Amino acid sequence: MRATTIHAPGDIRVETVPDPTIEAPTDAIVRVTAGCICGSDLWPYRGENPVKAGNTIGHEAVGVVEEVGSDVSRFSVGDFVVVPFCHCDNTCPVCLAGVQSACPNAGGTSSGQAELTRVTQADGSLVKTDGMPDEKYLPSLLALSDVMATGWHAAVSAGVTQGGTAVVVGDGAVGLCGVIAAQQLGAERVVAMSRHEPRQKLAREFGATHVIAERGDDATAAVMELTDGVGADAVLECVGTDQAMQTAFAVARAGATVGFVGVPHGVELPIRRMFSQNIGLRGGVAPVRLYLTDLLERVLDGRIDPGKVFDLTLPLDESPEGYRAMDERRAIKVLLKP
Amino acid sequence: MRATTIHAPGDIRVETVPDPTIEAPTDAIVRVTAGCICGSDLWPYRGENPVKAGNTIGHEAVGVVEEVGSDVSRFSVGDFVVVPFCHCDNTCPVCLAGVQSACPNAGGTSSGQAELTRVTQADGSLVKTDGMPDEKYLPSLLALSDVMATGWHAAVSAGVTQGGTAVVVGDGAVGLCGVIAAQQLGAERVVAMSRHEPRQKLAREFGATHVIAERGDDATAAVMELTDGVGADAVLECVGTDQAMQTAFAVARAGATVGFVGVPHGVELPIRRMFSQNIGLRGGVAPVRLYLTDLLERVLDGRIDPGKVFDLTLPLDESPEGYRAMDERRAIKVLLKP
Repeated sequence: MRATTIHAPGDIRVETVPDPTIEAPTDAIVRVTAGCICGSDLWPYRGENPVKAGNTIGHEAVGVVEEVGSDVSRFSVGDFVVVPFCHCDNTCPVCLAGVQSACPNAGGTSSGQAELTRVTQADGSLVKTDGMPDEKYLPSLLALSDVMATGWHAAVSAGVTQGGTAVVVGDGAVGLCGVIAAQQLGAERVVAMSRHEPRQKLAREFGATHVIAERGDDATAAVMELTDGVGADAVLECVGTDQAMQTAFAVARAGATVGFVGVPHGVELPIRRMFSQNIGLRGGVAPVRLYLTDLLERVLDGRIDPGKVFDLTLPLDESPEGYRAMDERRAIKVLLKP
Repeated sequence: MRATTIHAPGDIRVETVPDPTIEAPTDAIVRVTAGCICGSDLWPYRGENPVKAGNTIGHEAVGVVEEVGSDVSRFSVGDFVVVPFCHCDNTCPVCLAGVQSACPNAGGTSSGQAELTRVTQADGSLVKTDGMPDEKYLPSLLALSDVMATGWHAAVSAGVTQGGTAVVVGDGAVGLCGVIAAQQLGAERVVAMSRHEPRQKLAREFGATHVIAERGDDATAAVMELTDGVGADAVLECVGTDQAMQTAFAVARAGATVGFVGVPHGVELPIRRMFSQNIGLRGGVAPVRLYLTDLLERVLDGRIDPGKVFDLTLPLDESPEGYRAMDERRAIKVLLKP
């Protein structure tokens, strides 16, 4: 099959690699209808994560079940499924505790920037639609495999509830989905931090009531002014850099929680502020499966449309251009069609 | 009045200092019936926090209102009160958010190791009993001014609820009160980490179902064995050292929260484990007032008896010996009688 591979920082190729096969009776093979490039794929692309030359890359997909292992009972060939980037059996104590992303019985993720992808623990991992979904839903369904679920996890981890002010740090696809989540979970004010006009616009479409273009101390001052000096009730940290994390804690009110979903890179947590102001930190790798059934309903009944984060669609063979476009922030998120 | 002062690490004295006076109309002066020495007083005593020579030290007290400012309406001369170590107006947005320990309108704490103490924002800070309490309740009421409320805050922050396994890291007075809190909040298994026989015994009296005497990796292994390899549902970090924090995160299951109340000293948070396993961190300076009414009821109706943490009572003039006894772990916690 054709798949996107990475050979060195900046060196993305589309190559022919062996088809994935059923390796365990709980596996399924899914023919990818649409895959995409994740902000976290940019870490190795930029050389900030180690690269193993020739490895496939990417971890988001929707598609049609092509083959199932002998122990897979909930899915059949032909089912249209959302493939969460993290697999899970959804029955072990860790999954039952709501942390499907740490399921000890799942295999690693497999590429979604490819024609086929292998899903471990298929019965636990996958969610299917009733029949083939309308084409118009494809981008939003694809967003459920990672970014929408991850933004949702940020909001849930930050404790967003009815009322109050939620601040979203980060205007990437996850941050923008965090705006959707904060709005859906009932925040009265949803503050998006963004200084890129197209992203500001999308944030407002997604429910942001305020946009703050400043950074650092000026951003903090803007949130403080908005909240009568108290700070935000919930903060979603959707980047993973130290600067983003410091801003997240600076704008949080005493007793708030920072929900973090950006893969931490060089982050130093401000433990003195956390302690003196009782500001908590929760989050991590999103347990996609936990939210997937609910999010699927929200997509299909039109309450959310996270597919709008895809502002560039390319054929799979043009993956390298997709990476360049995201790296240079010419695109928010790139959808790839095998 | 007589008060305990610190002049240098290890140099504790009892001296005559000026009586505190009403400085703001919201102040009250309380004549101390009983004060005590806190584990956190040992940080400067051991030279791990800076010392300002001649400063008074200590911050826990119960006593009788001696004088009130003109704006104090809820308390009168003669009332018996518990003095929380952190004062608060209990009406501002920060207090209403449940973080009375970060109230921006409160003055600093004042000494409880003295004959008199000044309480800022008295109407918000204090809680009184109906009439003078029986002498037998004094130690437990005194414990409410800090350690019992702090242990409670650790358990609440860690999300202890009915069922499940709570692990308490730290066998000081706060950790032992954390055991009480975990038991009261319904944890099915309460695991105390302690290798000191008298503290192990008290932990069991307070509701610990298991005691783990090991440290480091062995302690983690013991918790993992107890929890079928999953880890604890809630972890109370009641020390503040890096070792204690690392143990707390190591024994926490995926999705759990570490509730931390030990003042952090040299702590490096394991952010990769926090992220990959979704282990949260919450807590900080305990909002004593938030819990005080409830805890007072629990003391007076006999459900809890945190006063047992006081295993040495000394006259105020023997404060220096009290510090030595706690520093050398000859005493868990020392009660001082002016």
